[in-house]
Amino acid sequence: MLTKIHHVGIVVHSADEALKFYRDALGLPVTADRVVEDQGVRGVLLKIGESEIELLEPTRDDTGVARFLANRGEGMHHICFESDDVAKELEAAREKGIELIDQAPRLGLAGMIAFLHPRANHGVLVEFATPIEGQHDH
Amino acid sequence: MLTKIHHVGIVVHSADEALKFYRDALGLPVTADRVVEDQGVRGVLLKIGESEIELLEPTRDDTGVARFLANRGEGMHHICFESDDVAKELEAAREKGIELIDQAPRLGLAGMIAFLHPRANHGVLVEFATPIEGQHDH
Repeated sequence: MLTKIHHVGIVVHSADEALKFYRDALGLPVTADRVVEDQGVRGVLLKIGESEIELLEPTRDDTGVARFLANRGEGMHHICFESDDVAKELEAAREKGIELIDQAPRLGLAGMIAFLHPRANHGVLVEFATPIEGQHDH
Repeated sequence: MLTKIHHVGIVVHSADEALKFYRDALGLPVTADRVVEDQGVRGVLLKIGESEIELLEPTRDDTGVARFLANRGEGMHHICFESDDVAKELEAAREKGIELIDQAPRLGLAGMIAFLHPRANHGVLVEFATPIEGQHDH
């Protein structure tokens, strides 16, 4: 069951520049800011209600996020729905014939996560996430 | 003050087709479905937590939504933050030098609304909305 929008992922050239808008102008508080080396991104989370904005700045050129930025420019990249059971969510999607990127849940910034293919979802990259109890941040 | 993600707007060729994913596969309930003649869109809202997904299907070719679809294809179009006072929000943005699309709040699907310019916001079209008490839907 999907319970809320966990976060909306936004790809930017520079998280520092984007923070001038999301943190300083809109006034959203930063809840996490870290570089994930193996994903080649700096991820910054800002809280808004029960959801978050996730700024994604590529730290190298050979990632999906870097390619998105090169091809499409800055903008909304994906939407993540929180689920109480990402494995069940993924299985239900598979049974309905929805094309998947991740065949099984994996550890990600938001907990146990899985991505569906945007071809399946009218151009929207959809992520499911089940946060991990006690995980410090996303 | 911004209180939550009010909705994420997604532009699609056919709302009926997109509902097969968002309503039938993801299981999100439809809360509103109507054609707004003067905006040239069919808007369908689906509830997810405290937020909504807004599917936008152009009903004619001379609108921003139709041009977005022609130029960029289906995908995420804008993010709307709920505010307790959209006029104040807009004034604060103007004072901070943020480029606006709407110089004053106007009546929209989500209540009194105003759009900022995506040039100001790292490629993201941002909407502020203050729902109107008693308005039947968005």
